[in-house]
Amino acid sequence: MTDAAPRRGRGRPTRTQTEAGPATRDRILEAAREEFSERGYEKTSVRGIAKSAGVDSALVHHYFGTKEQVFEAAVEGAMAPAIGAPDTIDTIVEGPLGGVGERLTRFFLGVWENPTSRTPLLAIVRSAVNNDTAAAVFRRLVAAQLLRRIAARLDAPDAELRAELAAAQLVGVAMLRYVIKVEPLASVDLERVVAGVAPVVQGHLTNP
Amino acid sequence: MTDAAPRRGRGRPTRTQTEAGPATRDRILEAAREEFSERGYEKTSVRGIAKSAGVDSALVHHYFGTKEQVFEAAVEGAMAPAIGAPDTIDTIVEGPLGGVGERLTRFFLGVWENPTSRTPLLAIVRSAVNNDTAAAVFRRLVAAQLLRRIAARLDAPDAELRAELAAAQLVGVAMLRYVIKVEPLASVDLERVVAGVAPVVQGHLTNP
Repeated sequence: MTDAAPRRGRGRPTRTQTEAGPATRDRILEAAREEFSERGYEKTSVRGIAKSAGVDSALVHHYFGTKEQVFEAAVEGAMAPAIGAPDTIDTIVEGPLGGVGERLTRFFLGVWENPTSRTPLLAIVRSAVNNDTAAAVFRRLVAAQLLRRIAARLDAPDAELRAELAAAQLVGVAMLRYVIKVEPLASVDLERVVAGVAPVVQGHLTNP
Repeated sequence: MTDAAPRRGRGRPTRTQTEAGPATRDRILEAAREEFSERGYEKTSVRGIAKSAGVDSALVHHYFGTKEQVFEAAVEGAMAPAIGAPDTIDTIVEGPLGGVGERLTRFFLGVWENPTSRTPLLAIVRSAVNNDTAAAVFRRLVAAQLLRRIAARLDAPDAELRAELAAAQLVGVAMLRYVIKVEPLASVDLERVVAGVAPVVQGHLTNP
């Protein structure tokens, strides 16, 4: 949210509010992330997002298209700080293959350990578990941005399945440690988790 | 639902409907499972369950207590057919330790492969991901019924953590194969998944 454009609850948008520009686009995206986080995919509407951003619904459609496309843009935006610098995934994927399991494990758990990146991730996971359209968006982004790139590095006929079984170990740890909070896993030191999980991730990816 | 007790949408329950007995208890539980499955934990109310079962809310409280306790009974009921015969868990846990990874993997994936047991499981997972109270119930039941029994068999100081990391591999496969449906994992032959996952589960449990 920019200070220059306070939210308006009701009424016709003013000229300033409907004016196109990068700041308006960012404001809509921020409102979308908040709406999807708070209400989940199904209960969020383009109209609600527009209202929260203080713009006309037509402008949301103009920038992003359908609700599914707004969600996709919001998920990508939420994943960006988690993914970090543009070359973070490059570093994981393109470093020495013998350490890819540990790099991937530390990256993934690091994102979940940090409350700032955990909150939007949790919202995305909730939406994906509850709604098939949201699941499809999640699938597309995660598959394209991470799994396919790791698989491409492996040069094995079953590389994609290997990457997914490795991802499954990490996703399951996130579910039990951060979402369901099963003890002792939820409270044990992160290094203990890395020690238990990184060799498994490595094994899925590179074992003969 | 029994044929003798059709649902009633409105009005005061008749004498027959408030009459206590095992059939009434089962009818309430069946209605609870349906309500929790369709609406999720948060939007389900004891009043709604009572209405769907054609009984008074007081009778639901009489049999089960609070909404959380009704949910716990419903989850236990939903898990019972999945778990199968009373000695299913015994067979997994008490067979030769060298094959526990494969037995556990086949049992867990078998439950998810079967649409009849998958539907209530999915409802439970959705509730647990969306609501902390539902997560606590899930945690309590899964920990007590399965993880702690496996850990007890291992006789290692970090046995509970080992059981949870093994469970994490299985939970992650369920999420990606049956909930998010990432390809190729979602469509690949079950035996291929067992071959990839059972050694990991075994390793978590018994590797030195």
